Amino acid sequence: MWAELLPIGRLASGGYRRFAWTSADMACREWFRAEAHTRGMDVETDRNGNLWAWLGGPGPDAFVTGSHLDSVPGGGAYDGPLGIVSAFAAIDALLARGSTPAQPIAVVAFVDEEGARFGVACLGSRLSIGAADPARTLALADSDGTRLAEAMHAQGHDPEQVGADPEALRRIGVFVELHVEQGRALVDLNNPIGLATAIWPHGRWRYDFLGEGNHAGTTALSDRRDPMLSYAMTVLAARKQARLADALATFGKVTVDPGGTNAIAAGVTAWLDSRAPDEATLTELVAGIEQQAADRAARDGVRLTVTAESMTPLVSFPRGPLDWAADLLGEPPRLATGAGHDAGVLASAGVPTAMVFVRNPTGVSHSPAEHAELDDCLAGVAALTELMVRHTC
Amino acid sequence: MWAELLPIGRLASGGYRRFAWTSADMACREWFRAEAHTRGMDVETDRNGNLWAWLGGPGPDAFVTGSHLDSVPGGGAYDGPLGIVSAFAAIDALLARGSTPAQPIAVVAFVDEEGARFGVACLGSRLSIGAADPARTLALADSDGTRLAEAMHAQGHDPEQVGADPEALRRIGVFVELHVEQGRALVDLNNPIGLATAIWPHGRWRYDFLGEGNHAGTTALSDRRDPMLSYAMTVLAARKQARLADALATFGKVTVDPGGTNAIAAGVTAWLDSRAPDEATLTELVAGIEQQAADRAARDGVRLTVTAESMTPLVSFPRGPLDWAADLLGEPPRLATGAGHDAGVLASAGVPTAMVFVRNPTGVSHSPAEHAELDDCLAGVAALTELMVRHTC
Repeated sequence: MWAELLPIGRLASGGYRRFAWTSADMACREWFRAEAHTRGMDVETDRNGNLWAWLGGPGPDAFVTGSHLDSVPGGGAYDGPLGIVSAFAAIDALLARGSTPAQPIAVVAFVDEEGARFGVACLGSRLSIGAADPARTLALADSDGTRLAEAMHAQGHDPEQVGADPEALRRIGVFVELHVEQGRALVDLNNPIGLATAIWPHGRWRYDFLGEGNHAGTTALSDRRDPMLSYAMTVLAARKQARLADALATFGKVTVDPGGTNAIAAGVTAWLDSRAPDEATLTELVAGIEQQAADRAARDGVRLTVTAESMTPLVSFPRGPLDWAADLLGEPPRLATGAGHDAGVLASAGVPTAMVFVRNPTGVSHSPAEHAELDDCLAGVAALTELMVRHTC
Repeated sequence: MWAELLPIGRLASGGYRRFAWTSADMACREWFRAEAHTRGMDVETDRNGNLWAWLGGPGPDAFVTGSHLDSVPGGGAYDGPLGIVSAFAAIDALLARGSTPAQPIAVVAFVDEEGARFGVACLGSRLSIGAADPARTLALADSDGTRLAEAMHAQGHDPEQVGADPEALRRIGVFVELHVEQGRALVDLNNPIGLATAIWPHGRWRYDFLGEGNHAGTTALSDRRDPMLSYAMTVLAARKQARLADALATFGKVTVDPGGTNAIAAGVTAWLDSRAPDEATLTELVAGIEQQAADRAARDGVRLTVTAESMTPLVSFPRGPLDWAADLLGEPPRLATGAGHDAGVLASAGVPTAMVFVRNPTGVSHSPAEHAELDDCLAGVAALTELMVRHTC
C-alpha cells in the first residue's frame, strides 16, 4: 500500500507537496478510502474534513489510530503517512491473528496538519476540539488569495459544517498517533521506538519590516532605510538568543517587496518559529528577539510590526495512556518534542491520547531526506498492533 | 501626453510594473507611436525592438534623444518615461519656434533597460552595440520560465533578427539621454539639471547558499545546517564593507527553498548588487564580501556558490559632447552616477553621447515615491531643446 501512496504529490526533488484541499491531497484521500474499503472498513468524513475508517462500525470506547496525509513544501514521505500506513498495517496484523475486537477500531486522517497552505497548523483537530473559530478559520487565505472556505467548497466539502465536533471525539476510547521522530533522540537512546511525554510550547510570529524602496545603484548608504538589514540582524539575534535559552528559533520563510535585484527593499516580511521546553522560557525568548529586532529597526529607520500568528501552550500527554502504553511496550524511552501534532491538540482537550515515535536515523524531517529503516517501521507497527489488541480484544 | 501614459501598468500601490514585452510595455509602445504620428514622425522598430521616431526621415549626423519605457517592479513614473516625454516636448518647442532642422532628429525608446524581467539590464542597447550575445540573450528566461525569444515572438517581433546593429547606430550624430536623477546630488548642488561624467562600474552576483532542509521544531541547533544564517551574516557584511569602501552593496532579492514557516531552509538564493567609483575598489569589495560569506557558510555547514551574473566596467562619457553640452547649458554641475543607462552602453561603444539629469527632490527612485518638480522638468526640456536646436539648425 506504501507503493501506491509514494508517487502522489511528489516533486522532481523527491520532496512532497501535498497541501490541504489540493488535488494532491485529494488523491491521498482517495488512496485512504481505497485502503479502508479493501479491509471492509466504512469511511466517514466528519464536519471538518477529517477521514475516519471504521472497522466494525463507529461506537464508543473505540481504539483510534492515525495521523495526517498532507505535507510541508518539499517535505518527506514519512511525516504523517507513516502513521496512517502503520495503522492499516496494524489492522492487517490484528485480522491475521484471527482476533475479534470487542470494541470499534478506527483509522483517522486529520486534515491540514502542517498548515503549509493556510498558515495555521493542525486545523482539522483544532476545529474539532473547538480551539479554532470556524468563521476566522474559513476566512484564512493561501498565497494565491484562495480562502479555506473556497478551497473546501471546490473539493466538494461544505464549509458551513465546519466547527467543534464533540460527537466525533466522544467515541475515542484512546487515540494513539504513530509518527516518525523528527530529531535524533532515539538514535542516541539506541531504541527503535519511544513514547511522547509532552509537546513544547511553540508558536509563529510574523515580522513586518517596513523601510523605503529605492535605487540600489544611486542611493547613498546614509540615505537608506533598508529593511533587509534589520531582518538580517534579527535572524542572527534569534539564533543566538535561542542557543543561550536552550530553545529553538528559526526564520525559514521570508518575502521581499518589491524583490528586485537593483532595488533596495521597501518591505521585508518574515516568520519566526520558536519553541522552548516551558512557556516562561518561550515568552522570554520571543520578547528578547523582538526587542533586538526593534532596536535595530529603529537604527535603520525601519518600522517593525510583530504579529503573533499562533501560539500553542505546553501539552503534557495524559499519564494514564502513557503509563498503560509504556507498560505494554516494555518501557521504551520517553521523550518530549518540539513538534506540534494532532495528538497534542486532542490531549489538550482532555482526549485520552498517546504518541509512538519511530526512530529516524538522521533526524532529518520536512525534507526529501526524511527516512526510517524498515525494521524500525515494523517495530512501530508491532507496538500499534499490541496496543490495539490489548484495548479491543 | 504625460496624462495618457500614466495609467499604463500602474499597480494599486501607485508603483509601475512595465516589464519588457508584456502587455503593459506594448501599451507604452503604442502610446509612443501615437505621439510620434501626431508630430508627423515615422516610427521604425529596429532589429532588437528599439523604437525610433524620425522627424524628417532617418539620416546621418542625427540628433537622437530618448530613454526607455519599461520599469522595475513597483517602480516610479519618471525613470525612463521622463526622457521620452521630454524628447517629444523638445520637438514641440523646436517646431513652435518655426525652426527648420538641417539634420534629422529621432526620439528613441530602448527596450528592456531595467532588466526586471530577464535579469540583464539595458538589453536593447547592449544587443545593438554587439555587447550581448544574441543566442544567449534570447535563451534568458523570466520567473515564469518564458524565454526572451518566446516573449518577443508573442508580441510579433521576430527573434531571428536580434543582434548587433551598426547601421542604426551609425546615424547618430549625438545621443542625449535625459533622466530623472536617482540620488540627491542636485538638491545639495541647488541646480535643476546636471550632466553625467561617468557611470560607476557595477554588477550583480548570485549567492547560492545550500544547507539542509529540516524541521524547525525538532532539530537541535547544533545539528542544523541553516543557510539563512549564512545569508543574514552576508547581508550585514556587505553593508559594512561597502561603507568602509565608500561604495554601494545591496541585497534586494532573496528566495528560500522550501520557504515553509516550520522548516529550516534547505537553500537560500540571493542577489548582490554592488557599485563603486572605480573598478579596483569594486573588485576588492566584491571579493571581500564573498570571503566573509564563505567563512560564515563554512561555519554553518553550508555550501556557497557565487556566480557573477553581469559586470559592467566604468563608463566615462566622452569629453567632446560633455563639454559642448556644458558650454551651451551654462556649465551645470557635473556628476558621476551608480546607475546604468542606455547612454552609458552607447558611450562604451564609442557613440557620441551625453546625459542630462533632472533634479529629484527626495532622491527616491525605483519606488512609487519617485518624483521631479514641474519647473525642473521644464528646465530639462529647455536644455534638450537648446541642444537639439544647436545641433540641427
